[in-house]
Amino acid sequence: MNRTELFSNIKKKNSYLCVGLDTDISKIPTHLLNHEDPVFEFNKQIIDATKEYCVAYKPNIAFYEALGPKGWESLQKTLKYIPADCFTIADAKRGDIGNTSSLYAKAFFQQMDFDSITVTPYMGEDSVKPFLEFTDKWVILLVHTSNPGSVDIQQLETRYGKYVYEEVIFASQRWATADQMMYVVGANKADKLGTIRALAPDHFFLVPGIGAQGGDLEAVSKAGMNVQCGLLVNSSRAIIYASSGKDFADAARKQAANIQQEMNSYLQNYML
Amino acid sequence: MNRTELFSNIKKKNSYLCVGLDTDISKIPTHLLNHEDPVFEFNKQIIDATKEYCVAYKPNIAFYEALGPKGWESLQKTLKYIPADCFTIADAKRGDIGNTSSLYAKAFFQQMDFDSITVTPYMGEDSVKPFLEFTDKWVILLVHTSNPGSVDIQQLETRYGKYVYEEVIFASQRWATADQMMYVVGANKADKLGTIRALAPDHFFLVPGIGAQGGDLEAVSKAGMNVQCGLLVNSSRAIIYASSGKDFADAARKQAANIQQEMNSYLQNYML
Repeated sequence: MNRTELFSNIKKKNSYLCVGLDTDISKIPTHLLNHEDPVFEFNKQIIDATKEYCVAYKPNIAFYEALGPKGWESLQKTLKYIPADCFTIADAKRGDIGNTSSLYAKAFFQQMDFDSITVTPYMGEDSVKPFLEFTDKWVILLVHTSNPGSVDIQQLETRYGKYVYEEVIFASQRWATADQMMYVVGANKADKLGTIRALAPDHFFLVPGIGAQGGDLEAVSKAGMNVQCGLLVNSSRAIIYASSGKDFADAARKQAANIQQEMNSYLQNYML
Repeated sequence: MNRTELFSNIKKKNSYLCVGLDTDISKIPTHLLNHEDPVFEFNKQIIDATKEYCVAYKPNIAFYEALGPKGWESLQKTLKYIPADCFTIADAKRGDIGNTSSLYAKAFFQQMDFDSITVTPYMGEDSVKPFLEFTDKWVILLVHTSNPGSVDIQQLETRYGKYVYEEVIFASQRWATADQMMYVVGANKADKLGTIRALAPDHFFLVPGIGAQGGDLEAVSKAGMNVQCGLLVNSSRAIIYASSGKDFADAARKQAANIQQEMNSYLQNYML
């Protein structure tokens, strides 16, 4: 899915919600555990319930990897089940030397058919480039995350008075344009999001941290939107675990619908 | 495997060789392709041929992930086949927010039973800690890699006149001791390895980049050894693809034996 198509889905659905499929077998409703593939069954029902209200799905790969080969099968089935008008994100945070990154790219872009993958920048250009060689796919590069540990490396100040996460933006803009690269920018500090928007006016930002991680959707939308919305705001646990009972899909639908309604008004008010 | 056991295996085998199992289905000898699990069959024969000469095996997870669920099965079988006196490294370069890193830790330390995993430091302390909660396991943290892109982030200078990779060492020494943490330090610049040894006198370094990536084993050994050897030097392609014919295992054995012989003399000459 290219940038024009993504923006057109955002306008069609009046939403920039990404639903995080952090599907934890120990947290899904017990009545699903009799199914042959409980993880897929849960995801299927979550997707059916939320697909009107969101424009993207982001399976967190750790949750599938933790289940071994069976987990990878659940992931593949889930990916195939996601409707074509939803952008798909492999939240994998991969990144290694060139020939290894090439294999990760093949795993997520060929073996599976994700639109995008999250990538960590620590190893630099040649660890990111192999993903970009798939010219119809996206790299979503970690820039500024919302966890406490983001101070340790990302917020180190460089000798030119910049932060490391700013240097990641400068460097990565030489590797790809906003047509093939997005940035992960945490939601917990909306003012920082505004600064980052000034450095990367055209890029889409994937914003985790709304809901369980405590970010404020209005502040994020105000600080982060550009002329094409430019935001994919992720919510995982607040939606998929809205209820732990048999009504989990309905509860997820309601949560997603509420967020979509809020987003609709921010699109009217804050899109440049 | 703890530090004392690792050092005792190094002394027993007079070797600090790690064999990288970067097993690429498109590169393994064609006569193996009839086997039910060619990747495992290849690894099995490589392990049989090299286990006398090395103290560690490092499957590069990308190579298995690229094969989907079947690849994970080959990986699990390979791990079980590695002898108990060899340290096992999941070269996965993972790292994410706490609850996600916990799942990666479970995947590699519980679901499978690796001794260690390579971890990327970009997200900071709380992305690394969940791995350290497995107190009998190791984190091998990326510090300074051997690829060209290492200049982009790792070699940025901070306002205090340090490099980012040095800050990674300072920060991570607050998270764990040399009994539970090792560092990845590329082999292509032995002088840099000496500087890093000064900052972390006790830690084991996992050194990739000998062979295909061009590092010099003697220079690395001279610059990097400490009183407990302190080095695991990895070679992947130069060993496992020493021959592409039916004699691949014999060729791998010869390569590994040559390296072990060289290492034996460096252990006599350079271990502090």
